[in-house]
Amino acid sequence: MSTTITRLCARDIRFRTSQGGHGSDAVHKDPDYSCAYVVLETDTTGLAGQGIAFTLGRGNELVCAGVTALSHLVVGKTLESIVADMRGFCRELTNDSQLRWVGPDKGVIHMSAAAIINAVWDLYGRREGKPVWKLLADMPPRQLVDCVDFRYISDALPEDDAVALLEEHASTKTQREQELVRVGLPSYTTSAGWLGYSDDDVRQRCEQYMARGWTWFKMKVGFDDEQNVRRARLIRETIGDEGVIMIDANQAWEVDETIAHIRLLAKYNLLWIEEPTACDDVLGHARIARAIAPIGVACGEAISNRVLFKQFMQAGAMQFCQIDSCRLAGVNENLAVMLMAAKFGIPVCPHAGGIGLGNYVQHLSAINYIAIAPSLDKVVIEYSDHLNEHFVEPLQFEGARYRLPTGAGYSIKMKPKSLDEHEYATPC
Amino acid sequence: MSTTITRLCARDIRFRTSQGGHGSDAVHKDPDYSCAYVVLETDTTGLAGQGIAFTLGRGNELVCAGVTALSHLVVGKTLESIVADMRGFCRELTNDSQLRWVGPDKGVIHMSAAAIINAVWDLYGRREGKPVWKLLADMPPRQLVDCVDFRYISDALPEDDAVALLEEHASTKTQREQELVRVGLPSYTTSAGWLGYSDDDVRQRCEQYMARGWTWFKMKVGFDDEQNVRRARLIRETIGDEGVIMIDANQAWEVDETIAHIRLLAKYNLLWIEEPTACDDVLGHARIARAIAPIGVACGEAISNRVLFKQFMQAGAMQFCQIDSCRLAGVNENLAVMLMAAKFGIPVCPHAGGIGLGNYVQHLSAINYIAIAPSLDKVVIEYSDHLNEHFVEPLQFEGARYRLPTGAGYSIKMKPKSLDEHEYATPC
Repeated sequence: MSTTITRLCARDIRFRTSQGGHGSDAVHKDPDYSCAYVVLETDTTGLAGQGIAFTLGRGNELVCAGVTALSHLVVGKTLESIVADMRGFCRELTNDSQLRWVGPDKGVIHMSAAAIINAVWDLYGRREGKPVWKLLADMPPRQLVDCVDFRYISDALPEDDAVALLEEHASTKTQREQELVRVGLPSYTTSAGWLGYSDDDVRQRCEQYMARGWTWFKMKVGFDDEQNVRRARLIRETIGDEGVIMIDANQAWEVDETIAHIRLLAKYNLLWIEEPTACDDVLGHARIARAIAPIGVACGEAISNRVLFKQFMQAGAMQFCQIDSCRLAGVNENLAVMLMAAKFGIPVCPHAGGIGLGNYVQHLSAINYIAIAPSLDKVVIEYSDHLNEHFVEPLQFEGARYRLPTGAGYSIKMKPKSLDEHEYATPC
Repeated sequence: MSTTITRLCARDIRFRTSQGGHGSDAVHKDPDYSCAYVVLETDTTGLAGQGIAFTLGRGNELVCAGVTALSHLVVGKTLESIVADMRGFCRELTNDSQLRWVGPDKGVIHMSAAAIINAVWDLYGRREGKPVWKLLADMPPRQLVDCVDFRYISDALPEDDAVALLEEHASTKTQREQELVRVGLPSYTTSAGWLGYSDDDVRQRCEQYMARGWTWFKMKVGFDDEQNVRRARLIRETIGDEGVIMIDANQAWEVDETIAHIRLLAKYNLLWIEEPTACDDVLGHARIARAIAPIGVACGEAISNRVLFKQFMQAGAMQFCQIDSCRLAGVNENLAVMLMAAKFGIPVCPHAGGIGLGNYVQHLSAINYIAIAPSLDKVVIEYSDHLNEHFVEPLQFEGARYRLPTGAGYSIKMKPKSLDEHEYATPC
């Protein structure tokens, strides 16, 4: 019995998070956490796939329209034919001979491809009755590598090297899977240090998160050095010397400016500076990394594709790799980037501040640890607890650790009531 | 009397160029030359601004939708307020706190910004009664630099260096302006060597273009080495030893593959290889450039923004700078890139294969020569004569040279009949 995708629909779902200052930083002052919510309907009773691309509100309609523009490459295909050639399917979706001009591999059209590919994995997991992380964990090395398009990254990671890398760790996969099922994945919190919060807010939130088990804290920084220093001191005093502090500039600074800002903050013992400058500036980040070591540079949430990630790694411009599950073209391109990170020895600490991103990256971080990079040294997933209540299978935490999801699929299905109440435009 | 922008409208205009194999290459097999055609209506009788972003067909509706998404940043503003702070206007248009997530500075939303900014320049030129190149040529150095956003490029080109660079050549501007008015701008043709043409077609077209004065020819290359070599030989035999050959892979190859392909073709004396590999791969292009010198690397038509151009220049990855008038955010970001090219000593040879691109780049190349980089050594504009008949002010050539446009504005206004006949969706 094959399953044919009969209809593809993208819904424009938006939450008014800007009203509480949640998610505010130096560049994104008023984010309304939103998503293009894709449903793949099938001819198999009760079987549908859900996928999202995350946005900040305005522009969400463009990603929905991009999904519609790609639908001719999806509707009418069987799940079996897609799964039999994942690499080919992803290549087709990101290389339409006309659509690629408005990318390629970046911006609206790439995020639309991400939402669709993520929905295909949800469908695949549901059909197999497995969470996506488990689906991936059960794949032999060759099958997992066959999901990845090595075009434009073969100079940094030849396909055979990727297979060898996976084979090296294949025999110990079960141990790590059992470990994760037992203890979950470590996280850090961003929810204490948004730029829109007052000092009192920040202190109280740090204390609340510490009481619940968190020891890693990320703080947003901006143009006001006095404020940056005051908050770093406040957080360091609140969490003590054992706690870990990371800071995040959200691309606010110039290259030389960054080096000057960091000099003022270094005494608070920072693990990383995240997105100091333009997300496309490989060489700029490399210069910053050399100047501020041993503080690392973290980035990735705004890096468009595997070709740019490749260069950040080649140039030593990225000490922490922050994949984004919805900006890269879904599970498959994230696998490509995690494989490269393993080759370059860079820990993967996914971006998850937004709606639905934690749901996704718990699967990606699990498969990364189980099959690709068998170490949790300096590996943490971002934790942000906004809007969790809208999901059918919400994130589960014990202390500061993500519990592995157990339901079939990619954990992204939202409650019908939430969808209806937060639909921005007419349903499709 | 001030001029207020009262309405912004984007029309989805498409031509079925794929039917003749025109514009076909290794990656874009069936381009339908299209554009998001923006009209800025004003409260001044008879005054409107037109602007476009070029696409290949599918996806054009997304750029139109992006224009609509940006309209709240344009409608209601006066032309005078925009012109008084061009830098601020462009920054606002490319940094909307929510929309930048679906970019930033790349893909659909950036092309939408380009169409709008280009329309503002058309409006500005019409209001002043000057072609855009002349409007720019008459600006003192400081005013021209004030059009440019130096954010994220200040490490390569500090603002003061840009002013100094322009001041160095300011006293001789009039001479160069007179020269261009007299003899026009040199061009090369791509129209003889599209991948979809037969060998006979290619030979005949070369001969026709030579008879009309062209001596520089670009040929598309693909995966078939035998075909690539046969065509290079054919063109070299047809145009003789004095003619110049460039080749264009449109991102078809891997880094190492490129070096191997070029080795087979080098004996036909090539000036440049254009877009050998992924448009985002600065480090890959740098490696290719080192391996194939003295053949140069040319790229730019798919490079999203000034930050990436900066790195191509810093890394020695680009020997010919091919700005795209509609992918970069309009006139202003093109000025930024041309200023960096002048600083790095790289000739600017704009991309113009498409609809309306020649109309635009004649202005950009003119201002580049008059005010920014006073040399025509190795400077050529792409020439492609498709669809010229649809413009109110079509391109004018004498031999292989673009004649400078004389009408007010940015030469992009299309005939009402052409617009009506080629509108893809419902008019707005």
